[in-house]
Amino acid sequence: MPSTNLTFAHRDEHRAWLASQGALPAGFRVGTTRFDFMPAEAPKPAKMTLTLLTLEQPTPSFAALFTRNAFPGAPVIVGRKRLAEPTLGAVIINNKISNVCAPGGVEASERICAATAAQLGLAPGQILPCSTGVIGWTLPVDAMIGALPQAAAALTNASILPAAEGIVTTDLYPKIRRATVGGGSIVGIAKGAGMIEPNLATMLVYILTDIAVPRTELRPMLARACDASFNAISVDSDTSTSDTVVALSSGRVPFTDWGAFERGLHQVCRDLAEDVVRNGEGVRHVIRVTVRNAASLGLARALGKAVVNGPLFKCAVAGNDPNVGRLIQAIGKHVGAHAPGTNLSQLSAKLGGVEIFARGVFQLNPEKEKALVAHLRDAELYQSAPPKDGVFSAPIDFPPHERCVDLEIDIGNGAASATVIGGDLTHEYVSENADYRS
Amino acid sequence: MPSTNLTFAHRDEHRAWLASQGALPAGFRVGTTRFDFMPAEAPKPAKMTLTLLTLEQPTPSFAALFTRNAFPGAPVIVGRKRLAEPTLGAVIINNKISNVCAPGGVEASERICAATAAQLGLAPGQILPCSTGVIGWTLPVDAMIGALPQAAAALTNASILPAAEGIVTTDLYPKIRRATVGGGSIVGIAKGAGMIEPNLATMLVYILTDIAVPRTELRPMLARACDASFNAISVDSDTSTSDTVVALSSGRVPFTDWGAFERGLHQVCRDLAEDVVRNGEGVRHVIRVTVRNAASLGLARALGKAVVNGPLFKCAVAGNDPNVGRLIQAIGKHVGAHAPGTNLSQLSAKLGGVEIFARGVFQLNPEKEKALVAHLRDAELYQSAPPKDGVFSAPIDFPPHERCVDLEIDIGNGAASATVIGGDLTHEYVSENADYRS
Repeated sequence: MPSTNLTFAHRDEHRAWLASQGALPAGFRVGTTRFDFMPAEAPKPAKMTLTLLTLEQPTPSFAALFTRNAFPGAPVIVGRKRLAEPTLGAVIINNKISNVCAPGGVEASERICAATAAQLGLAPGQILPCSTGVIGWTLPVDAMIGALPQAAAALTNASILPAAEGIVTTDLYPKIRRATVGGGSIVGIAKGAGMIEPNLATMLVYILTDIAVPRTELRPMLARACDASFNAISVDSDTSTSDTVVALSSGRVPFTDWGAFERGLHQVCRDLAEDVVRNGEGVRHVIRVTVRNAASLGLARALGKAVVNGPLFKCAVAGNDPNVGRLIQAIGKHVGAHAPGTNLSQLSAKLGGVEIFARGVFQLNPEKEKALVAHLRDAELYQSAPPKDGVFSAPIDFPPHERCVDLEIDIGNGAASATVIGGDLTHEYVSENADYRS
Repeated sequence: MPSTNLTFAHRDEHRAWLASQGALPAGFRVGTTRFDFMPAEAPKPAKMTLTLLTLEQPTPSFAALFTRNAFPGAPVIVGRKRLAEPTLGAVIINNKISNVCAPGGVEASERICAATAAQLGLAPGQILPCSTGVIGWTLPVDAMIGALPQAAAALTNASILPAAEGIVTTDLYPKIRRATVGGGSIVGIAKGAGMIEPNLATMLVYILTDIAVPRTELRPMLARACDASFNAISVDSDTSTSDTVVALSSGRVPFTDWGAFERGLHQVCRDLAEDVVRNGEGVRHVIRVTVRNAASLGLARALGKAVVNGPLFKCAVAGNDPNVGRLIQAIGKHVGAHAPGTNLSQLSAKLGGVEIFARGVFQLNPEKEKALVAHLRDAELYQSAPPKDGVFSAPIDFPPHERCVDLEIDIGNGAASATVIGGDLTHEYVSENADYRS
């Protein structure tokens, strides 16, 4: 579960809550603009949103983690170089086109940075570029540079909500989380719904704080927080070529309790990570797997991932079907292939608090079956209904609750534990990714 | 492609071809029986088919490979013990219940073996048991023993087709392949449609030959043949708890050209493996990935698996959408996570013979796009149509053709190559596994 336990009856209720979370920390401004352009690779016009995140003063205190996909997008290549810069002054983000393996991609990103720097009175090396969207298309650089002045004119220090809305692609709703630490705050936004099994970071995440944290502290803290949050989720086992997590401190609020800061940072990252799954493409059930008493953290996390990435188990959850045979299969598949010496004779498993497996055999009966079905139904975000045209889509654009399908797996032969969060596999996922061109 | 290039316009045409392939090698007999029983774990009766495969004389020349899933079914546990027996006389196979992690599972399998042995005048250690179907349920041992005499009474030496039909579960059609070697033959059957990323073997495969091959030759040959066939396919990345491949020689036809025998064995295994994918749950496109010039066989095979197990790429193929960004993502995901030192700067990729990627960038234009869409449509087994009740199912129960979505990936920095075969991810897969209880 996230640190909250919220329910929303309607989109407007959810948006009001987001607005209440979105106050910008001191020293930051955001501005967005939306415009039409003609893609080079497609026959009809498309829409793009440019989002500017700026610091009132360039800061040396910034951190960023990028995808480990071996075909990183051009902005990731540029962003890695920015880590060596003394200060950062702004982030420029576009959706719709991710600028991955496109001809001239790095040059295009650098041109956007140069134009943004000129607009803001900064140096190009002070600008971090980010792109998300279609892989392989080329950025419409001239149209983007033409739209920059409107984004700059829209800059305000009021709320991060326009940025949370500006960076989305297939997301159903924007995602904002905040923590209050000392006299300051940590506010994060995320976009991402598909191609989500981050390997260091999820699609795009921006975490802003006014608390003064030196770069040397911020970078390892962000790496640890991502490891326990974005690196512990999977919507569909696919790893984006654009994953980026950025943390920026404006340094306005003096503070030295870095333990408290790191706890706040972890909370914001964990909450955003779970938001990303809850809003994942086609996700109707969030699945939360806690693996306990494993021989290593790596094994605990890998077993959790094996469960939430097992398509047959994911389909069973989608159908509110407690098909625990598929769960045991997924655990045995991973152990057999990757950890064959592991002793599983003491393994026990609970679903929704109900013991389903112990000492090598299933522990099932018709009453338990009823309780398991009830648990699955209770965690469902919405019911799927067959549409007339066969193209399934979510009927909601807000998270009605924060309940999960709750799995506990106790290996019984070690001391490591991990929690992994994933989603089910639904007709809505297939429709999103097969029934029309993305 | 399989060694054939068949097309079938109708189920009856396919069944006639199967019948033409099914003549039993000398020295074997098969018999089946189908009966109703009351499962202990479910409120309504179910149907089971018992299949007997017998040798006229028990043979020392037998080989078997079993799942590496760490929760193997009871028949797998018993089967592994049988490998040490001097001779094998029969295989007894049931569908509907797989006898995995069920209380008393091994004892149940041994009781079936003892009853089969008594029926056939053999010793229990000469019987290999196999079960496939629901995981976690208990075998109806008494009902099975009661049905054994009918299966024995049905034994004939005419055709393997009744066995190919008797062992299926969610398969749309039976699968038989044969090779003629010297004066004898190799005939194989397979069942399996879901939970298919075999790790040593696919669901259930039986290969019978009358050619005299000593056990010491047969076992390593079967392991090599499985590695290049059943271990190189994936329908859904899940690894069954019951995977078993059995090879039996009746020793009737003297032969010493073991190279020729092994080539025939490989062909039968490769053809059956591709049949399993073509008949995979929800598969509308078979995807054949050939990876060339990789640094190792392991990397070549792993990259092929990463492509055919990438849900976003699988969905794109289902939609006849040449979304090559998702393909490059899948390759980069694997390399980034598991082979981060690999040089991909010389990677090129072709889809349907059309170059789509070279030297780090996409090679796309609107004419190529049309050719790619045409290639995907040509490989489609059937068109998906939205059903009124939202539950998608295949409208065919035969393979209309043997064409594949043909992907060639050249890494350009090594000498190893591998071919991996998989399927797309469709509404039919989700319906099969989410829309009703299996």
